[in-house]
Amino acid sequence: MSPNPIYLGVVGVGGVGTAFLNQLARFPNPPKLVLLARSSQTLLAPTPAYSPIPAADWATAAATPSVTKTGALPAEEIATYLASAPGRAILVDNTSDINLAKQYPTFLKKGISVVTPNKKGFSDDLSLWKDIFSSAAEGKAHVYHESTVGAGLPVLSTLKDLVATGDEVTRIEGVFSGTLSFLFNTFAPASGSSNAQWSAVVAQAKELGYTEPDPRDDLNGMDVARKLTILARLAGLEVSRPDSFPIESLIPEALASLPSSAEGITEFMTRLPEFDAQMANIKDSAEKEGKVVRYVGSIDVASKAVKVGLQYFDKDSAIAGLKGSDNIISFYTKRYGSNPLIVQGAGAGGDVTAMGVASDLIKVMDRLQ
Amino acid sequence: MSPNPIYLGVVGVGGVGTAFLNQLARFPNPPKLVLLARSSQTLLAPTPAYSPIPAADWATAAATPSVTKTGALPAEEIATYLASAPGRAILVDNTSDINLAKQYPTFLKKGISVVTPNKKGFSDDLSLWKDIFSSAAEGKAHVYHESTVGAGLPVLSTLKDLVATGDEVTRIEGVFSGTLSFLFNTFAPASGSSNAQWSAVVAQAKELGYTEPDPRDDLNGMDVARKLTILARLAGLEVSRPDSFPIESLIPEALASLPSSAEGITEFMTRLPEFDAQMANIKDSAEKEGKVVRYVGSIDVASKAVKVGLQYFDKDSAIAGLKGSDNIISFYTKRYGSNPLIVQGAGAGGDVTAMGVASDLIKVMDRLQ
Repeated sequence: MSPNPIYLGVVGVGGVGTAFLNQLARFPNPPKLVLLARSSQTLLAPTPAYSPIPAADWATAAATPSVTKTGALPAEEIATYLASAPGRAILVDNTSDINLAKQYPTFLKKGISVVTPNKKGFSDDLSLWKDIFSSAAEGKAHVYHESTVGAGLPVLSTLKDLVATGDEVTRIEGVFSGTLSFLFNTFAPASGSSNAQWSAVVAQAKELGYTEPDPRDDLNGMDVARKLTILARLAGLEVSRPDSFPIESLIPEALASLPSSAEGITEFMTRLPEFDAQMANIKDSAEKEGKVVRYVGSIDVASKAVKVGLQYFDKDSAIAGLKGSDNIISFYTKRYGSNPLIVQGAGAGGDVTAMGVASDLIKVMDRLQ
Repeated sequence: MSPNPIYLGVVGVGGVGTAFLNQLARFPNPPKLVLLARSSQTLLAPTPAYSPIPAADWATAAATPSVTKTGALPAEEIATYLASAPGRAILVDNTSDINLAKQYPTFLKKGISVVTPNKKGFSDDLSLWKDIFSSAAEGKAHVYHESTVGAGLPVLSTLKDLVATGDEVTRIEGVFSGTLSFLFNTFAPASGSSNAQWSAVVAQAKELGYTEPDPRDDLNGMDVARKLTILARLAGLEVSRPDSFPIESLIPEALASLPSSAEGITEFMTRLPEFDAQMANIKDSAEKEGKVVRYVGSIDVASKAVKVGLQYFDKDSAIAGLKGSDNIISFYTKRYGSNPLIVQGAGAGGDVTAMGVASDLIKVMDRLQ
């Protein structure tokens, strides 16, 4: 409400970063963008005036004459620069860089709030998680990271509201990867049928750009495991690491050790058809029970069981009926009873991920003003 | 973060009000409850100490010796009392009283924030809506009313986030009444079949306490129309009144003029079977298309068309597959593309409605601190 200017630093101008800058440029009451960084370069609003950098794409920002250009800055220097601004400051981290994430406590202790879709820091060692939140308390700063799970879908905010108002979350279950959602919705649709081989569906997804450049980065389940780690911690479980619970990898063991080079990826895709019979068996055995197979993550709070992997679902269940590359997240709680609170929709993509970041930024600005 | 105490007034101790007090009693950092009112009585923390009233049920609060008891107070006096507290104040209105809602501007202009599940004020004349939000801006106060649509489900917060970050909401569609959800899920289930007559399902819902004391208050569609009015206004449409668009009433015309007395209700229930054939026809005609009938509300933003009534849905659609008395709300937006963002779950009941109120209260406290 009050007109105290807020100072913003943004790191990362990839797909999400660019979409975010686009949304930021249309804020009716924008913060002052005083730092914009990509891996090799940093743009700074010169002190002491801090005349803001235009919140446009990188090229436009970099071409602005008043802007100071420098090379990559260490996180500590970024933190010092933002902390010296004549008002409250916020760091938006649009990278997926674990090293920047490890510096969040440095920012937070200096009173700089952090908004980010970067899931690495929140799903790493539990000690980093604790350090982030105690540093935020120490610096009276805020940490918002809605887009680390389900992109712009209201997943973390909903879980936090349930917990903060005293509901008892008993179970969280869902499809947390847009890529794996697409693969299984296409491979084993709940209505109609498909004769597509597993390897052909993976190849199709790769061509459509739905997978990481190396599809094994989706198939190994680690992205889902990181999201589950974040949800489980918010639900009160002390998960020590994202690999401290069972994760079913969809990479055939024989192909796991292929190098991650371009040649390794090509060999992986070439040899994947050898394992089609294996996936077809799984699909058929689900079919025999009148079910379909899906790749899901689940958290059972009482038994502290977190797991990620294949599971069979009734064809008329919400998980089986997912479309395209949608995510679905079901919260079972004491108050909601037998029917869960469900959130569903696109859980990946630059625009919707940036939307989660932008609305987090608005919330932090509201709290600082 | 800072320890500025916040002063709270709560009006209404019915089902939602009692569940809210129960949740409030467990807040780790509660606001100071200094006023608690029901229709005939008011409890006040004596000035100038404002020692808080215990946030328990009415009886416990009323039995606290330090509390001042008085009769019902006019809204202006409540506003004056809260405004004189030595800190920021919040009014939680847990009634469904339109007259109290009409006084929100009085509270807001004095800087008292308003949190409420009372949909009456937000769905009345557009002039009251505008007055509420301009008064909030004038008083630098906040208005949060998540539970006016879908109880504790993240419906309004999601819509606000979409709009605030510049997404284009094209269509909103859903089942917004727990009562009507139960009636149609039972009368015309998407899987399996039911031979139950419409009037028998209404009678069952009434016995289970799922309907208002007079079921016509659910069947007339006005509750859904009020929710649609709120959503449409948040999406940018200037809906003048909750009855300014087509609303299909499920009350047979011949029974509409029966009095709302106990005798009138009894006569309504007794004569409802006369119209079972009519509802059976609708069900059958949907069935012939391989569909089921549901009572939905929809907003088409581009054509500014808001409507409430019966519609047929594919049996494998999310709306057809709803269970129990769940609500479902689908947001179609430019960013989310062909697959909507969906929120689903219990949309009625004291605990989940109170949860929406309690989490709104936490958000307002966060913004005032």
